[in-house]
This record gives sequence, structure tokens and C-alpha cells, in this order.
Amino acid sequence: MRPKAPERGFPDTEFAARTDKAQAGMAKAGLAGLLLMTEPDVRYFTGFQTLFWQSPTRPWFVFVPASGKPVAVIPEIGAELMRRSWLDDIRTWSAPCPEDDGISLLTDLLGPLARDSETIGVMKGHETSLRMPLGDWERLMDNLMGLHVADATRLVQGLRKVKSPAEIEKLRHICAIGSATFARVPEIVAEGMPFEDVFRTFRREALTQGADDAPYVVGASAPGGYGDVISPPNRRPLQAGDILMLDTGCTWDGYFCDFDRNWAIGHADDMARRAHDTLWRATEAGLAAARPGNTCRDLFRAMSGIIAEMDPSGGDIGRLGHGLGMQLTEQPSHAAFDETVLEDGMVLTLEPSLSYGKSLMMVHEENIVVRSGGAELLTTRAPQDLPVI
Amino acid sequence: MRPKAPERGFPDTEFAARTDKAQAGMAKAGLAGLLLMTEPDVRYFTGFQTLFWQSPTRPWFVFVPASGKPVAVIPEIGAELMRRSWLDDIRTWSAPCPEDDGISLLTDLLGPLARDSETIGVMKGHETSLRMPLGDWERLMDNLMGLHVADATRLVQGLRKVKSPAEIEKLRHICAIGSATFARVPEIVAEGMPFEDVFRTFRREALTQGADDAPYVVGASAPGGYGDVISPPNRRPLQAGDILMLDTGCTWDGYFCDFDRNWAIGHADDMARRAHDTLWRATEAGLAAARPGNTCRDLFRAMSGIIAEMDPSGGDIGRLGHGLGMQLTEQPSHAAFDETVLEDGMVLTLEPSLSYGKSLMMVHEENIVVRSGGAELLTTRAPQDLPVI
Repeated sequence: MRPKAPERGFPDTEFAARTDKAQAGMAKAGLAGLLLMTEPDVRYFTGFQTLFWQSPTRPWFVFVPASGKPVAVIPEIGAELMRRSWLDDIRTWSAPCPEDDGISLLTDLLGPLARDSETIGVMKGHETSLRMPLGDWERLMDNLMGLHVADATRLVQGLRKVKSPAEIEKLRHICAIGSATFARVPEIVAEGMPFEDVFRTFRREALTQGADDAPYVVGASAPGGYGDVISPPNRRPLQAGDILMLDTGCTWDGYFCDFDRNWAIGHADDMARRAHDTLWRATEAGLAAARPGNTCRDLFRAMSGIIAEMDPSGGDIGRLGHGLGMQLTEQPSHAAFDETVLEDGMVLTLEPSLSYGKSLMMVHEENIVVRSGGAELLTTRAPQDLPVI
Repeated sequence: MRPKAPERGFPDTEFAARTDKAQAGMAKAGLAGLLLMTEPDVRYFTGFQTLFWQSPTRPWFVFVPASGKPVAVIPEIGAELMRRSWLDDIRTWSAPCPEDDGISLLTDLLGPLARDSETIGVMKGHETSLRMPLGDWERLMDNLMGLHVADATRLVQGLRKVKSPAEIEKLRHICAIGSATFARVPEIVAEGMPFEDVFRTFRREALTQGADDAPYVVGASAPGGYGDVISPPNRRPLQAGDILMLDTGCTWDGYFCDFDRNWAIGHADDMARRAHDTLWRATEAGLAAARPGNTCRDLFRAMSGIIAEMDPSGGDIGRLGHGLGMQLTEQPSHAAFDETVLEDGMVLTLEPSLSYGKSLMMVHEENIVVRSGGAELLTTRAPQDLPVI
């Protein structure tokens, strides 16, 4: 049975609350505004949701002023959709226009701040990118001599890390869809099926279960275990003795699940079974450590302590999980370097991995909400024993 | 019947040929190297294909030197997959590492060029973005005092605009899959179906027809016509009198189709029928104009001349088609500003649109290869008369 879907979208009050919090942070940091340009940042403050971002042609901008509603500076093709948002001030140009893709509109908007030598925040830090041409950015900065630019990564990611109840409802829904899809795998996948058809079948099942899309489906299938977890599909048929892993980011209303599952085809050897059991117990340790007040480093250490029973290196994937929301991966990172303090309402993946045997690896992943009483699972917990198809 | 798939991937000779051409262009432009960091640019020179780019956490870099094979500077998690490419020099770090996400590796690689005051090319122009943190970019430039940075947009996009026979084979395959999917719409979609289920059904059908994925599915359905073409789905059921439009970018082996189709649900009014006929004839004019030697502006004028019969403004979408390949939209643009000369092997969309009635619009799209003998359709041509479901 398909999980019942919550309402799409958010009430305007949600965007107003996000903007209020951002403006409180901006006041503390002495910022006269935030200039945002990536899909999740724009959507976070406006609700503007479209797949059109897949086209790299046009830049999109939202400016969050020190007070009042955000201002959109966007291509005319998005005006109709943006007018359905809570914004009042929507400035558009006929894009693409290589000579002036929003630059003079931004110069008009930010010129007064430059004249007053104000500081605006821009996303310049870890996990960000500049979603506009670098040449246009340099031109804009030349136009706005006197304007100071500070890094607003911590401020915006700090807000986005803690999910609202309405966001958690969407994340719970897509995680339930992901769980229902994984539960069907033993019925829809079998020995002999070419691996690329496994991917296709999985995607079709995710849609059947109610996902809007399954943009991220990666995996591996190889005798006794796999050595790589980010590859696209090949045509090799599933064979008895393979370890099959599928990892998916499915979406519903613009929110992601991100977790994986392992199966043995026909039979499993002891080493693979032991790896699965070790990762399962590492996840248990992560679940126990995922409490407000602990840090991401604590989470990392709790999981790597168990992983070390089988793999002293702890693998080289760089971290053992991350934040989850409008993006497949968001801050924070469960890594030794990340001292982010866990808070009620953070949605996270727990993603222990280990290396074993001859260049083999295994991954294991669950999605949770941090609650004052401890971790709440959004995914249906994987079985402790490696399941056999 | 599912179209028969070509081989996945490319022989190493394809990447060597692309690199040779880039190096010839670099020599002309006085560039000692190209620093690339987006998914399509990295894939173009290496064949490195993974959905992992959907995670914004890690930056990826490829450096194309003045001679010899490209050098990869990438997170360790991608090393195994990159080793299957034609590259020999693969430098990795354990990412994420906010303190040093590849910056010291890039500094080592590019330091000698900085000491010699050389110039490297970076993608800074129209339709590009900086896929690394702006703060890291500034830090890298500080590390490399003496290095000059030039815009390599024209050089790289100039190469990518003209597709090889092997690329065209992949594009032909995914366009055939898209056409087969659209052909099934009258059988799988019906009055009363909630619009979000239309999207889901369409995606499932595209996968059944052989697409690896259908990452871009947008559309509209509204009485007498639609006013917006980039919206996500809603739950409104299809109703008699609606004009339904679906626009899709489906992928196969990392290459996109991008086209749309219109249908009337139950019946169509004269205005919508006239709009469809006008757009169909505008496309015919585009097909006739799509010859080597003509420019994108010529294509634009040929189509807008017909559109003007019904819509003097020509609409405000900004252009009437674009390049197509590894990205849903690529350069060039069929617009008055684009004087790109058409060449044999360019793969393009023809995408006339018009406004009519009270804030209504219609779009229409085909995918073609420019050939010395004229346009070759990759899509099954839409019927001239608006079809009724």
C-alpha cells in the first residue's frame, strides 16, 4: 500500500519564519542582506520549486534584505511560477541575455548598499558553489565598488540544518516510499537480470510507491562484494554469489531520502555476512549517540569504534553520514573534523562503511531525525543479517 | 518495441581526439592548461560518469595540460571509477575536508605555471558556473600569485557544440526512446487522472522504453491552454477541454533528449488548434533553415517570422531552441543575439513558442542534427494538427 502523502508546499508562514530567523542572524552578523543563487537556497526562502534548474543556461537570484520579504531577480520564464509564492517584489529580464543576465538588475538592487559601504552575505564556504558565471560575478563586484561581501555559509546552513515539522513530514514520507521500494527488491530483482535493468526496475518501483522521482540510483553487484559505490549501471547479469547494493535518493515534493541496502544473490560468504553485521551494529551505535548535545564527531566516533573491529582504517569515504533535506547530502558531516552540536529536528543519515577482503567495501545507511528523546528512524531498519535473494 | 541500444561509453580514442582539439585551441589562445570542474566538462575529457555529482559536498577537478593526458584531482571516493578511464595521473584526497578540499593538490599542480606567469583557461562565461566554493577559489588564486586566468568558455563550448558520430548515436537513441514514450501517452493518460500521476506514469513509461532516467519532466494542463511551462505537478485531474503539454529530458548513457508534445483532452478550441498549427509550421521553417553556414540568428528569424502570424511579440522565453547533448540545454541559443554559425554535427532543439488569448502560451519542440544536406530529425515529428486524447 502506498504511504499516504502529506500536503505539497508550505504555508506562507513557514517562509516568513525562515526569513525572520535569517534576518535575526543577519542583524547579529552585521549583514545588510543575503544574495542567494542555488536551487535549495532560493527554494528555502521562496518555495520556488521547478526542475528548470537542470538547465544551466539561466542564473536565478534571491536577495533577503535586512527586513521585509525577499526580492526575486529571475528570468521572465519563471515569473508566473514565482508570482504564486509569498514574494511581492519580483524583478525579471528576458533571459538568456549573455550581455546582461541579471547583472544590471542586481546592480540597481544592491547599488544603495554599496554606496553605504554595507556588507552582504554570500555562500562562499564548504559545500557551496557559485551558480552564476564567474565572469558575471566579477563584473557585478566591479559595479558595486564599496560593497563588502562576507561568507554566509554558516548562517544559512545553520538554519537549514534544523528541519521544521512540515519539512520532517515530507522527509518521513519519502523515506517511507524508499523503504517500501527496498522491501519489494527481492520480488522484482533476480539472478540473471542485467544490472542496468535492476536500476530501471528499481526506479519504476519507486515511482509506483509514490516517489516523484528517483534521481539518484547507484549501486554495485560483484562476486563476494563490491569495490566501488558511485558507478553507473552496466549490463552484467546478477549472478549467484554476488553482493548487490543499491543506494537511492528518491524525492517527494522536493525532499530527499538517501539510504542503501545490501543483498546476497543466492548465497553469501562469511566475510560479507560479517561485514553486514558489523555495519548494522555500527549503525546501532550511531542511533544511540544521535542525541541533542552530542556532536557529529561523537557520532563518527561511536560508529568508527565498531567499524574498527573489522577495518582499522575506517575506510576512506571521508565521513560516516551527513545532513539530509532538499539536497541528497547537506551539512553537517559525521567526521572527526565536524563539531556541529546535534539539535532536535536535525535530519541525518547514518552511513557507516568499511573495507574488507581484497579491495572490497560495504556501505549501510539509515535516515533519522534527532529528537530530545533520541534518534527517530525515518527508514525501516535494515535486518541485522545480510538478506539473501 | 524498445529501440536497440548502442554501446555504452566511448573508446579512449574519442577522449584523445577531444583533448587534441582542445590543446590545438589552447596553443592558439596561449593557454598553458584548462582547469575544469563541472560534470559535463569533466566527463567530456575523461568519460567519468556518475550520479554522485548530485551531492554538492565534494568538488572535482580535471586539468587539461598544454600536451599529454588530462590530470584528475578528485575525492578518493571517485578514484576507483576514474581509474577505469584513459587517464594515468589521478590525484586524490579524502573528502570532504573543509580545510583543504583539493586546494593544496591544485596548488602543487599549478604552482609551476604560476611561477612562470602562465595563463590557464577557466569556464567564466555565459551558461557556466563555478562548481567549487567561491572562498576556495579565492584561496587558490591567492596561492597561485602570478598565474593568469582567461575565459575558456568559447574554446570548450566550441568543441562540445559539434558532436561526434558516437555522441550522435547516443542522442539518436534517447530521442527514439522519448518519441516512443510520447507515442504511448494517449494510451496511458486519460481524463480524470491527477496531473502528478500523469508525470509519474510518463516517467515509468520512459524507463520501460529504455531510458536510464527521466530527470526532467515538466508540463501543464489547463482549460483551453496553459500559462506556464516550468511548474512541478499538482493533483488537479485532467479535464475535458484541457490542453496538456509534457516536456521531457530523458537520458541514456549520460546524453539527453529534450522535447515536448501537446494534446487536447476530449476536444480543442480553434485558438489552441491554430496555435499548434502555427508552431508546427514555425518548426518546419526552422528545419529548412538548419543548414551549415546559416547562423542561430537565422534559425531564430525563420521561426519567429511564422510565430508573428499569431503573436507579434514572439513570446518572452528568451530563445527558440538551443544546443543539446550531455546537458538538457547547451550552447548555442536560437536568439537574435547568437551569431553562432551552424556546422555539420551540431545537435539542436527547435523550440518555437507563442503567446495567445488571455495569458496563454504554447510550446513545441523537436531535436535535430545539422547535416550538410539539411536538418536530420532525431525525434519523430509531431503531427501538424493538435492531437486529441
